[in-house]
Amino acid sequence: MLCLVAGLQRPKVAGKYSRCTLEGRGEQSIAERGAEGQDVGLKIMREIGIGLAGFGTVGAGVFLNLEKNRALLRERTGCDLVVRKVAVREVGKKRAAALPSGLVTGQWRDLLEDPRIEVVVELMGGIEQPLALILLAIERGKIVVTGNKALLAEHGAEIFQRAAEQKVPVFYEAAVAGGIPIIKAVREAFVANHFQRIRGIINGTSNYILTRMSESGLDFAAALAEAQEAGYAEADPALDVNGWDAGHKAVILASLAYGFWVPSQDVLVEGIERIAPEDIRFAAQLGYTLKLLAFIDAGADGAVEVSVQPALVPNANILASVRGVFNAIAVRGDVVGDALFYGRGAGQDPTASSVLGDLADAALALQSPRASYGFIPHTLYGKLRPASEVVSPFYLRLGVDDKPGVLARIAGLLGEAGIGISSVIQPETEAGAKAALVLMIHDAPRGKMLAALQKIRALDCVHDEPALYRVEAES
Amino acid sequence: MLCLVAGLQRPKVAGKYSRCTLEGRGEQSIAERGAEGQDVGLKIMREIGIGLAGFGTVGAGVFLNLEKNRALLRERTGCDLVVRKVAVREVGKKRAAALPSGLVTGQWRDLLEDPRIEVVVELMGGIEQPLALILLAIERGKIVVTGNKALLAEHGAEIFQRAAEQKVPVFYEAAVAGGIPIIKAVREAFVANHFQRIRGIINGTSNYILTRMSESGLDFAAALAEAQEAGYAEADPALDVNGWDAGHKAVILASLAYGFWVPSQDVLVEGIERIAPEDIRFAAQLGYTLKLLAFIDAGADGAVEVSVQPALVPNANILASVRGVFNAIAVRGDVVGDALFYGRGAGQDPTASSVLGDLADAALALQSPRASYGFIPHTLYGKLRPASEVVSPFYLRLGVDDKPGVLARIAGLLGEAGIGISSVIQPETEAGAKAALVLMIHDAPRGKMLAALQKIRALDCVHDEPALYRVEAES
Repeated sequence: MLCLVAGLQRPKVAGKYSRCTLEGRGEQSIAERGAEGQDVGLKIMREIGIGLAGFGTVGAGVFLNLEKNRALLRERTGCDLVVRKVAVREVGKKRAAALPSGLVTGQWRDLLEDPRIEVVVELMGGIEQPLALILLAIERGKIVVTGNKALLAEHGAEIFQRAAEQKVPVFYEAAVAGGIPIIKAVREAFVANHFQRIRGIINGTSNYILTRMSESGLDFAAALAEAQEAGYAEADPALDVNGWDAGHKAVILASLAYGFWVPSQDVLVEGIERIAPEDIRFAAQLGYTLKLLAFIDAGADGAVEVSVQPALVPNANILASVRGVFNAIAVRGDVVGDALFYGRGAGQDPTASSVLGDLADAALALQSPRASYGFIPHTLYGKLRPASEVVSPFYLRLGVDDKPGVLARIAGLLGEAGIGISSVIQPETEAGAKAALVLMIHDAPRGKMLAALQKIRALDCVHDEPALYRVEAES
Repeated sequence: MLCLVAGLQRPKVAGKYSRCTLEGRGEQSIAERGAEGQDVGLKIMREIGIGLAGFGTVGAGVFLNLEKNRALLRERTGCDLVVRKVAVREVGKKRAAALPSGLVTGQWRDLLEDPRIEVVVELMGGIEQPLALILLAIERGKIVVTGNKALLAEHGAEIFQRAAEQKVPVFYEAAVAGGIPIIKAVREAFVANHFQRIRGIINGTSNYILTRMSESGLDFAAALAEAQEAGYAEADPALDVNGWDAGHKAVILASLAYGFWVPSQDVLVEGIERIAPEDIRFAAQLGYTLKLLAFIDAGADGAVEVSVQPALVPNANILASVRGVFNAIAVRGDVVGDALFYGRGAGQDPTASSVLGDLADAALALQSPRASYGFIPHTLYGKLRPASEVVSPFYLRLGVDDKPGVLARIAGLLGEAGIGISSVIQPETEAGAKAALVLMIHDAPRGKMLAALQKIRALDCVHDEPALYRVEAES
């Protein structure tokens, strides 16, 4: 096919981002010329200039896959996505992926100054510099694509307010669950739904570690070491195992679902570092699998719960079957009912797929301005439910003296707090030794549960650190 | 919140569909007025006039859920989606859902004549009238939303050519897998991917019947009767159980994935009507579950396979776990890797959710014209692989004499055809009686397999109708 690639002048539109100049070689919009071009066997191709900030794993993945599938993207988008500059931290560094030296700059500000760049892809990592880059890009009318979950979770409100003011879209599919298009699903496909609940396994590293602990009986340290060796955990795995990587994603997802920016600092986030192999075993005996789960719930009162916690998931619940580094997100909408999305939540290529999807949306937005800019605040919800008021069943393991009367004292304290026990297991131990006592607790508010636990821990027959985990009620 | 609902003049754009007139009360576009409106506490709302053709299960679901979640849709889309007319077959008919009589017409042509209708939602069923309605709507610049899978599978090429010529978008999320947003995922989120394979359970009725046959040992007729009683199968279940409902969906999905309209008549479609309980049992003994599966594959040669067949799915494959009326679609893209979408594939509310998502996209498209109109043809693929050339493993059950030498003769014929046997099971029977012989066959081209089977059937030691099923290789 004869292919005439030419930068075309954009149609005149209202949004500020449309005003950045391009070397125009035509007078008509794509829409006006498309049919004509095809008639004479020509394909008139609009170039979209991209500035890439960051050339780590994901940045390189975007660059390489853009090269690899350029022909396909041209066909499907009618545009030629062209990387015009790549900003890196160290210009001279040796890289796995070859990067034409003419594209490289050590200054991310260069992306802002280049009038040929219409879309800035932020994959730098960190907070301060990406925030400055994104706000300046919006200021200059450049569309933003980012995969920076920590940045959005902390500064989403500010970023999207500026985006709306300046009428510049910000796309962020890669920020949540890698290759799974959950942002698009929640924002567009399920637009007619009130989201009643979302449950997500949205940190692949944690899920890999828990899968190994569960299937091979490894302890946390051994499973983490294995994950690091396999390249599934970074040298510093803190954000993955302390729950905050998932926490940031949950904040973004909940904010999008409910139309207000959930304050990160008020979200309950617990990691997997202190999970003991015995709790995984006891959970299995009871028919559950321990998972690091994001909980997003809207109550009838309009208050929203957002948390990330290790939780016992009934084995019949499909989330219990999500193994290794895979992610899955179960969504319940009041119209669509239950839906589940499953896929690779991290990694070079899956995340690049989402960035490239956003770039295609950016290309469309450059040709026809959007009425929305990535996040639409509204006031139908707006309150975060305090973690202490969230009601759920619990799993409680205590180290106790193996003596008569112990269970009665513990059950008494729970009873006083109005907390019911649904079942008890006491694994066999040698006579006289300390024993593990596992209680499955009926629905209870977390605050009450913690208060009762404090009294239980003060009993002289209770030893060791107790293990308290939320239980996912639905199977 | 004070809410000023006013029809606004649309911004001037190139596409024909933008020219239909609205009672304009303002001079500025939403984008221009939005911020201003918010500043003074006003919400300036663009009305989108909808004409609904068909008020059956899904049509009523769209109407009811639009009423129910009107406030939410207003917030999220910035538009007020207003049904202006509903075309029904029988005007006087009593309906479960109340329909204001002022909206009803017995003539679908009335939707075309009404200048206040900008979007036509086609949920009539059938082929001829919907096709006429859709082509005329496109002609008049009205955006189309349809859930009509048979129509698109048969006339997609024509419809989308007209849509592109007239620059009028046609949305069809509801046509494939009900509430699962697989069209949007394939078209937008995974735009950067070559699709290597797609596997789908995309007919809930069949899956319900097979689940009941598998879990309760029912035969086909009993399971179908149960499905009809539960409301999961229609009085005339032909299209569901003969595979063509899934076939239409597979054609649409493959066409979208590969950029050319797959000719329905060349697609291999088999149903579940002749599945015997014993094959479900034998499959289970071998570690497989029998599912009605859509197979969509692109080979290295660019040829595409599309088929719908009952197939043995390894139990470790997540599709084997999809029970009851649920649908699931597993997609493998060359960038994103494996992803899976799961949810309700039919029913009033899930399908309405998809129609309403399309209506929100239509509302956006009315405010900013699209560069694409729902389907983008290209020439990177374009050939359908004949079913006879598709290579896969097979499951073969034969009724044979329970005598020495039988297996040798059958194996001999397969060997002559170059077809390998990977395992044999022969369930125990009384001496001298006819026996079932089950062969698991290595990868073989379907054509060769059928030719060999014809020779095998001619053997005097082989009786009864054989059962031949494809085996899904990946677990």
